[in-house]
Amino acid sequence: MLTFDIINQSLESRARTGRITTAHGVIETPIFMPVGTLGTVKAVSVEELKACQAQIILGNTYHLYLRPGCEVMAHMGGLHPFMNWDRPILTDSGGFQFFSLAKLAKFKDEGVSFQSHIDGSRHLFTPERAVEIQSILGSDIMMSLDWCMGYPATRKEAMGALEKTTQWAERGRNFWIEQGRVNNLFGIVQGGMFADLRSISARQLADLDFPGYAIGGLSVGEPTELMYEMADHTVPQLPLEKPKYVMGVGTPENLVELAGMGVDMFDCVMPSRNARNGQLFTSTGTMNISNAAFRLDESPLDAECSCYTCQNYSRAYLRHLYKSRELLAYRLNTIHNLHYYLDLMHQMRNAINQGRFMAFKQEFYRKRER
Amino acid sequence: MLTFDIINQSLESRARTGRITTAHGVIETPIFMPVGTLGTVKAVSVEELKACQAQIILGNTYHLYLRPGCEVMAHMGGLHPFMNWDRPILTDSGGFQFFSLAKLAKFKDEGVSFQSHIDGSRHLFTPERAVEIQSILGSDIMMSLDWCMGYPATRKEAMGALEKTTQWAERGRNFWIEQGRVNNLFGIVQGGMFADLRSISARQLADLDFPGYAIGGLSVGEPTELMYEMADHTVPQLPLEKPKYVMGVGTPENLVELAGMGVDMFDCVMPSRNARNGQLFTSTGTMNISNAAFRLDESPLDAECSCYTCQNYSRAYLRHLYKSRELLAYRLNTIHNLHYYLDLMHQMRNAINQGRFMAFKQEFYRKRER
Repeated sequence: MLTFDIINQSLESRARTGRITTAHGVIETPIFMPVGTLGTVKAVSVEELKACQAQIILGNTYHLYLRPGCEVMAHMGGLHPFMNWDRPILTDSGGFQFFSLAKLAKFKDEGVSFQSHIDGSRHLFTPERAVEIQSILGSDIMMSLDWCMGYPATRKEAMGALEKTTQWAERGRNFWIEQGRVNNLFGIVQGGMFADLRSISARQLADLDFPGYAIGGLSVGEPTELMYEMADHTVPQLPLEKPKYVMGVGTPENLVELAGMGVDMFDCVMPSRNARNGQLFTSTGTMNISNAAFRLDESPLDAECSCYTCQNYSRAYLRHLYKSRELLAYRLNTIHNLHYYLDLMHQMRNAINQGRFMAFKQEFYRKRER
Repeated sequence: MLTFDIINQSLESRARTGRITTAHGVIETPIFMPVGTLGTVKAVSVEELKACQAQIILGNTYHLYLRPGCEVMAHMGGLHPFMNWDRPILTDSGGFQFFSLAKLAKFKDEGVSFQSHIDGSRHLFTPERAVEIQSILGSDIMMSLDWCMGYPATRKEAMGALEKTTQWAERGRNFWIEQGRVNNLFGIVQGGMFADLRSISARQLADLDFPGYAIGGLSVGEPTELMYEMADHTVPQLPLEKPKYVMGVGTPENLVELAGMGVDMFDCVMPSRNARNGQLFTSTGTMNISNAAFRLDESPLDAECSCYTCQNYSRAYLRHLYKSRELLAYRLNTIHNLHYYLDLMHQMRNAINQGRFMAFKQEFYRKRER
């Protein structure tokens, strides 16, 4: 079982620093988790992830279940040895992929039946099976199977999804306890964009006493202000002493805002996906590397950045690689964006520990909007 | 100007070891040069190239002239700082790409006019311009513009291409001397599959006294035995004390055979291109990583291999990455294949230095054909 120690609580906001200790090592929070969908964070090596100060990565259960599949994962001893990553791994439950990616997904009381987006084969995920598969993956932090919804959704739909999510969380938790509480299982708060439903969901899950809690169903198309409102409302409804994770969010600005609300963990494909599309995050804003203005530009992407890419390559070279669709472009861009995200978390932790989170936030916005 | 010192001459064959000293460092021969078409050896970093023991890489003048172009290359100070590679670089002259890739290439006395394969723009390469562009790239070893042909070709065509190649070699050399003999310029032997024409070409180029010589126009579709016959015939026609380079060749077996004929330098896209297609070279033969037999295979690609890929990853993981088209697959496969090629050259140099090249060759074939 993980332990979570709160190190410093900001006096100006709900932001806090903490330390999650798992079987594969320590995670300093608030933390961003790079997404390694298929047993690799796209375009980068595990050594490069470590050089970017990645402390934990995320694996997608839906994807790994389909490819390479449970037989391979069990035979190879789980995701850690398979992909040569010895630090913590968090896996999602597949719930979001059933909703967004699988064909003909049917959400029933029993679980979710779906067709593979790869070969159309039929499968059934139950709350118990979701935990079992994540155990095979050797995940340090597993997620309960949840019932996802789009935006907008009616109050009735949100209530239904919430109830199902709580029932499934309890079933998954019972299975996890029967199996000897191997690794850790988090519950996921749902409730759509209805504050009172979020409260109900949070209370029901808190009663189940999970090692940590995720807030799901955000960043599904709603306005940013509404996402902030829901997170701000939900975080205090969950046990103060447990780690809290907002799933699938978001921009650098989102991370700063949500950390200020007391969120401890984040994941998002944005830094890696945008890198592969040539969009790069810097301390002074976001840039597109294909811009002709960089054709003869000898300077690094970000003069303040200490990443491998910025220490060794010019904007002109990165633009050339990207325009030429060279594989190295995706790697160098991804290293930079992941470093940016992880360094941002590092700066936030320092600011919280030094009691100057609000000053940090002001400075962050001042520079990003320059 | 480079210096070339012959270290050891095999007594059983024409194989020899040598040392080429350039402004960017020393190259131990016989050597294989990974191909870095567009200012990057596809899928790998310069650090990974060095870890594979790459001593020199090749850049393609035709490609770099079109993208990023001479203005960028001149502004950035040449290929070395642009791509962050501080070891020697050899560039080709573009001759082969005009022949194989450019649209509507017209070979005239003056030079080659062609249309870009990217945007259809019109360009003219003269022998002088080819040297000038390679100087802008900062190439340590430049190639003379040559007149390429397909296979089969008539004796008359081969004679015409040979004559033009010699005239162009002389013009390029005169330009290079006028410019102060910056870096080094090699001549390229042509002559098709006609031994007597190869002799004429070699003699004419030898009279021009280049710092080194390439044998071009091989591996253009002819049978392997004919390629060997032409190389075996041509090498002794060139000055013994100068480095000799067979362009665009080839398989591991080709390298062993040609090194035995006294060839000092090789380049080929085969290890990197085949890696990206899942075909991997090992001490016991060639394997396709997508093979279902590797699904649960925990062993490395090659038990004898010390490369990063073999030291850290299983065949099962590499198969999964390749089947999932993950970017890391191309990198890990390329590292392995380049390491295989460069280690093969290292083994050959050791064998030659220890007077056991023929024994090495027998053992190489015995294992590869197992």
